[in-house]
Amino acid sequence: MNIINLDHISGTPLAPEVQDAMINAIHKNYANPSSQHQLGDEAAEVLQKAREQVARLINSKLEKEVVFTSGGTESINHAIKGVALAKAEKGKHIVTSNIEHNAVLRSLRRLRMLEYQVTSVPVDEYGRVNPQEVAEAIRDDTILVTIMHSNNEIGTIQPIEEIGKITRERKILFHSDAVCSVGIVPIDVQKLNVDLLSFAANQYNGPAGMGGLYIRQGTGLWPLLDGGVQENNKRAGTENILGIIGMGVASELAARQMDRRIEQMRKLKETCIQGLNNRIDDIMINGHPEFSLPNLVSVSIKYIEGEGIVLMLDEQNIAVSTRSACAAGALQASHVLLSIGREFADAQGTLVVGFGAENTEADVDRFLDALKVAVDTLRSMSPLYRKAVENA
Amino acid sequence: MNIINLDHISGTPLAPEVQDAMINAIHKNYANPSSQHQLGDEAAEVLQKAREQVARLINSKLEKEVVFTSGGTESINHAIKGVALAKAEKGKHIVTSNIEHNAVLRSLRRLRMLEYQVTSVPVDEYGRVNPQEVAEAIRDDTILVTIMHSNNEIGTIQPIEEIGKITRERKILFHSDAVCSVGIVPIDVQKLNVDLLSFAANQYNGPAGMGGLYIRQGTGLWPLLDGGVQENNKRAGTENILGIIGMGVASELAARQMDRRIEQMRKLKETCIQGLNNRIDDIMINGHPEFSLPNLVSVSIKYIEGEGIVLMLDEQNIAVSTRSACAAGALQASHVLLSIGREFADAQGTLVVGFGAENTEADVDRFLDALKVAVDTLRSMSPLYRKAVENA
Repeated sequence: MNIINLDHISGTPLAPEVQDAMINAIHKNYANPSSQHQLGDEAAEVLQKAREQVARLINSKLEKEVVFTSGGTESINHAIKGVALAKAEKGKHIVTSNIEHNAVLRSLRRLRMLEYQVTSVPVDEYGRVNPQEVAEAIRDDTILVTIMHSNNEIGTIQPIEEIGKITRERKILFHSDAVCSVGIVPIDVQKLNVDLLSFAANQYNGPAGMGGLYIRQGTGLWPLLDGGVQENNKRAGTENILGIIGMGVASELAARQMDRRIEQMRKLKETCIQGLNNRIDDIMINGHPEFSLPNLVSVSIKYIEGEGIVLMLDEQNIAVSTRSACAAGALQASHVLLSIGREFADAQGTLVVGFGAENTEADVDRFLDALKVAVDTLRSMSPLYRKAVENA
Repeated sequence: MNIINLDHISGTPLAPEVQDAMINAIHKNYANPSSQHQLGDEAAEVLQKAREQVARLINSKLEKEVVFTSGGTESINHAIKGVALAKAEKGKHIVTSNIEHNAVLRSLRRLRMLEYQVTSVPVDEYGRVNPQEVAEAIRDDTILVTIMHSNNEIGTIQPIEEIGKITRERKILFHSDAVCSVGIVPIDVQKLNVDLLSFAANQYNGPAGMGGLYIRQGTGLWPLLDGGVQENNKRAGTENILGIIGMGVASELAARQMDRRIEQMRKLKETCIQGLNNRIDDIMINGHPEFSLPNLVSVSIKYIEGEGIVLMLDEQNIAVSTRSACAAGALQASHVLLSIGREFADAQGTLVVGFGAENTEADVDRFLDALKVAVDTLRSMSPLYRKAVENA
């Protein structure tokens, strides 16, 4: 069963090098890195090496600015709730954008229950935030700006560097959810002017349930997990050493292969968008044409439901997604697509294609063929489509 | 280098069956369980199987009452902070004991910064809580009682069932940190009358960085991690599927082998305590003689420092611990040992010996031999010891 996986935004398979490193580590059976004997020392060294590998990927100057977490969601919760609770005396206002991931949205919703206030800035038709609007949203009691680096549904990359200049000037902490970006496109925490940056290993061929939170030295926030003194006192709990080893190797690989991968992805993306435009009418490609992830194509296909396409493609052994896997259980239309001006019905007819290292042009062709059949079939059963054709 | 590991309270090596299962899973390269295609379905099935394995270990009647977390520390933080924040309208008072793990202590300390109040009940000389004192500590505004099942430094097991009867009668939520107990001794969440129970896979030959939180159906608490709808909406974030698979297998193994392991551990513990009493003078065995973990021996050795012994034993390739690895970075004397009435100096001279599945009587003998040498050497250099001998 040769399944074509075009759902890499929900997660990527482990790279062979990551598999090898994790299997070796399983055989090694590392002890607790906090233990004060040689078994513990050995584990602590491995931990340190992985931290350096991750720090290099995001250009953190001090490894201890990298905190290992259980994934992007924990990193985001830690950053947002941690700053909010630590800075409550200064103020209870946070600025964000309309198209953040649920981990951000729901962390903020939670804080509203504790009387925090949130200003959410809109995005343009391509899903981009205007830094000027962020500047205008900042108040005297603003304690945090949290804007994602790239969007997990439409791929648009935000002007983080410019926003970071504003927050730095105004002396307000700046967090960016870079889960879909780290390991895929170059990320430099120095250049981006961020204080906090969230990311996850499963986005770049590392293990699921492993993430990182960059915390710039001197940034005052509460830990989400209180207890032991692990992670330089920033995140308690015995370390997921297998996951950390895998994330370290994945980070080194990602840094080394990034240029080549971006080129590979860009070509696949170009082929895909061209094929979509040539072969299927009444579609809209979502996201910014230039400032966008190379590995993601979002397409809204009029008159049909995305779920139907996913199921039909699945029968053809092709895996794609309607939107982020985290929201898969939810039935509402995507807030991201509504924010860039899509109609409710078009939002429901949206597919997210996410390329990975193992994908080829042949995969894209097979996808386009199968998609054409699926769309034609579904539209032939769609009263909406019939009405549209009659009116045309 | 044949290292004898007698530091299993800091973590246990992966069981061979767990290693195999995790290595198979690495080769399988599971997708995101939330994805709505066959790759996702396959991962979701694996997740469900592991949840059933864990549910059986603690006798949870509904698998969905088991929430997978990144370890004991996350489970504890989730339970305590989650209840505190959700029940703030009802009250801000929490009851605990004097000998809890740092994850509990520091979660509570954090809540104090949000104006919660904590009453901590004392323990007797064996480290046991009197349920009557818990009952007396409960006030009208009490929202949670959190008492550990067994102590990670002295092994004493608390009368959780009796405390649970009190909390149930008073309609107050009851959490127990059972990190050192689950997988080692029988745990039945029905019998224990708990609403919340925290545990960790690395205590019973599963992976580090993997834990569980039992949340009895209907228990209202806030998630610690907000975001996607994973874990029945109780814990957001893409699942650590490798860790979960390992925890599932470890749970099944623990349930099956528990009786045999307990017998093995009890014998080792008996040999160890007998050897300590026979061969080294001026020592105190800590913890309750009956209500105690079978795999843990805590011994306070007068006139010397535990750290010195750990280092000397390490040179002989024997790994032991002075106290919990989580607190290894901290320099204060153990609050647990002070709470059972040990002097500051004796607390500093304390060793924790933790047996694991692979330990033998020969390991204990080698430990006792090496310990005798280490103690004699250290005491020969100790002015305190000389003075004590002179005064004797």
